Amino acid sequence: MPKNDLYLKALAGEPVPRPPVWMMRQAGRYLPSYLKLQEKYDFFTRCETPELVAQITCLPIDEIGPDAAILFSDILVVPRALGWDIEMKPGVGPVIDKPISSVDDAMRVRKGDVQESLGYVMDGIRATKDQLDDRVPLIGFSGAPWTLLCYMIEGQGSKDFAKAKAFCYQHPEAADHLLSLLTDVIIDYLNAQVEAGVHAVQVFDSWAGLLGPDDFNTLAMPWLKKISEEVKGVPVVLFAKGAWYALERLAWRTNASALSIDWTVSPEYARQATRREVTLQGNFDPSRLLSPIPEIRKQVKRMIDRFGKDRYIVNLGHGILPNIPVDNARAFVDAVKGYGA
Amino acid sequence: MPKNDLYLKALAGEPVPRPPVWMMRQAGRYLPSYLKLQEKYDFFTRCETPELVAQITCLPIDEIGPDAAILFSDILVVPRALGWDIEMKPGVGPVIDKPISSVDDAMRVRKGDVQESLGYVMDGIRATKDQLDDRVPLIGFSGAPWTLLCYMIEGQGSKDFAKAKAFCYQHPEAADHLLSLLTDVIIDYLNAQVEAGVHAVQVFDSWAGLLGPDDFNTLAMPWLKKISEEVKGVPVVLFAKGAWYALERLAWRTNASALSIDWTVSPEYARQATRREVTLQGNFDPSRLLSPIPEIRKQVKRMIDRFGKDRYIVNLGHGILPNIPVDNARAFVDAVKGYGA
Repeated sequence: MPKNDLYLKALAGEPVPRPPVWMMRQAGRYLPSYLKLQEKYDFFTRCETPELVAQITCLPIDEIGPDAAILFSDILVVPRALGWDIEMKPGVGPVIDKPISSVDDAMRVRKGDVQESLGYVMDGIRATKDQLDDRVPLIGFSGAPWTLLCYMIEGQGSKDFAKAKAFCYQHPEAADHLLSLLTDVIIDYLNAQVEAGVHAVQVFDSWAGLLGPDDFNTLAMPWLKKISEEVKGVPVVLFAKGAWYALERLAWRTNASALSIDWTVSPEYARQATRREVTLQGNFDPSRLLSPIPEIRKQVKRMIDRFGKDRYIVNLGHGILPNIPVDNARAFVDAVKGYGA
Repeated sequence: MPKNDLYLKALAGEPVPRPPVWMMRQAGRYLPSYLKLQEKYDFFTRCETPELVAQITCLPIDEIGPDAAILFSDILVVPRALGWDIEMKPGVGPVIDKPISSVDDAMRVRKGDVQESLGYVMDGIRATKDQLDDRVPLIGFSGAPWTLLCYMIEGQGSKDFAKAKAFCYQHPEAADHLLSLLTDVIIDYLNAQVEAGVHAVQVFDSWAGLLGPDDFNTLAMPWLKKISEEVKGVPVVLFAKGAWYALERLAWRTNASALSIDWTVSPEYARQATRREVTLQGNFDPSRLLSPIPEIRKQVKRMIDRFGKDRYIVNLGHGILPNIPVDNARAFVDAVKGYGA
């Protein structure tokens, strides 16, 4: 067990002196130490080299001091493992070679062996655990089926993923096949991460909020539910970004220990929708980290007051932005650590 | 009064045999007849030439048959009138020359005379009214202060408008000055549109949903409220896209006749939050127009059943997408017209 167990206690619903804190993308581009590694190694080299994964995952632990580490990796390692070539284009983001454009393309996708194709992630977890030396828990993660399907059909980032959505509306059976297959892959992948030693896993459904409530019920909900039930041995955290309308059903009808929420959801709404069924994680507006530091401190305190210190994990409402000063990120974490003192 | 008054009756809360229907951006890039004009005239020429405004505004009325026309224009005509050069870059969207980057920049903005700088819009309204010949009501519009401020600081479209948000968090007084000034300009502008003959106005706060509920209360709500109170003589419709959490306060604390909502809000949630205080407008997922036509028909019927036929204006949850087949747009409108038959 990690020496700092605040994060795991919050997930288990046990009382804590103060809530734990970490930040999505905390090992990312706002850290000068990360940018130096970015200059030397390309994106997938950073993801696929266990020593680099360990080093990058631990950067914020050493420099900022959050209560949990999240494995440095990317949600697109899964489509890559399924055979797609993905390029990280500067200024554009990920671009997928030959995205799925027909029912035939969709039906041809095969599951494969996760241990074989994604073994480097498990090696990265083991290397990270060595380097973390049980200071804080390690969080594993995966993209959710709907979000991965968005990229695999659209071929790149998009404001509305209209191509991916149109495919699902025009070919519901092919979409179902893909989502079901991705779900199975993700379950295997997350269980392999658990076996390699992560203390919890988070599923990122970054594009859930592009779906209306009815489409969420067919394209996102069943798969998130299945993943939450079939990942064994550690708590599962679900982050269906933008899907405020689904908080109640995610809390009550899945096996998630916690739900991560974005900053459009007030603490009061989130608590009312989920009652005490789950732990909540979030939801500081990432842009708000550009506020003056005294304002950050004030708002963090107010946020914790409103969520309550228990069954709560302080985080951002989405990944940290590249232009956040390190001092501001540190002020955010420190404000949580000073809560109630 | 227009011969087809379904839209105005729905805004007034009067019973109708079936709800009215129109589509945001209905005079836009999915129409082959529009694309021909796009080839011949650049964007601001199309906006600033009264004959073209009239012609484009009427295209969907002739070809698709909605129950209201919305003036062809753009929300960025207001920053343009305030002195900014704006270029429409293909594949990028609007790019503003010398965006606001300091408190001094913000404090230097002056209001000017709307009739003088935006007189061409009023000419466009008069030309459109001639051509419409009272077949359907004409809707005027403006961008909301927060959304215009986003562009004026960020300089172009953005996923998160983090620069604009950071400016507001770091310089709240300068932001307040800008928002207050924009509000006054927008009120003058919309009242001038009313005087020129529009039957209703809609205020587009397209980026409201980037704000959490607290920031919405300072950066969006007071200005939307003031606009709704000071535009005289016609119903005001507010569209705070993504701000589901603000529906209740927008319904109860502004003078809006209707609220437009996006597709993440279920009819039941929207009705409960607003009760019978306002008319609701929306909220078909624009991507859903890529569904097979029988599916569009089925979903339109279901949507009306859930909202109820009265105090309801059928629309999309956001602008129509460029790749929507004209037949699908027509099927959407026809499905509403056939409702209850």
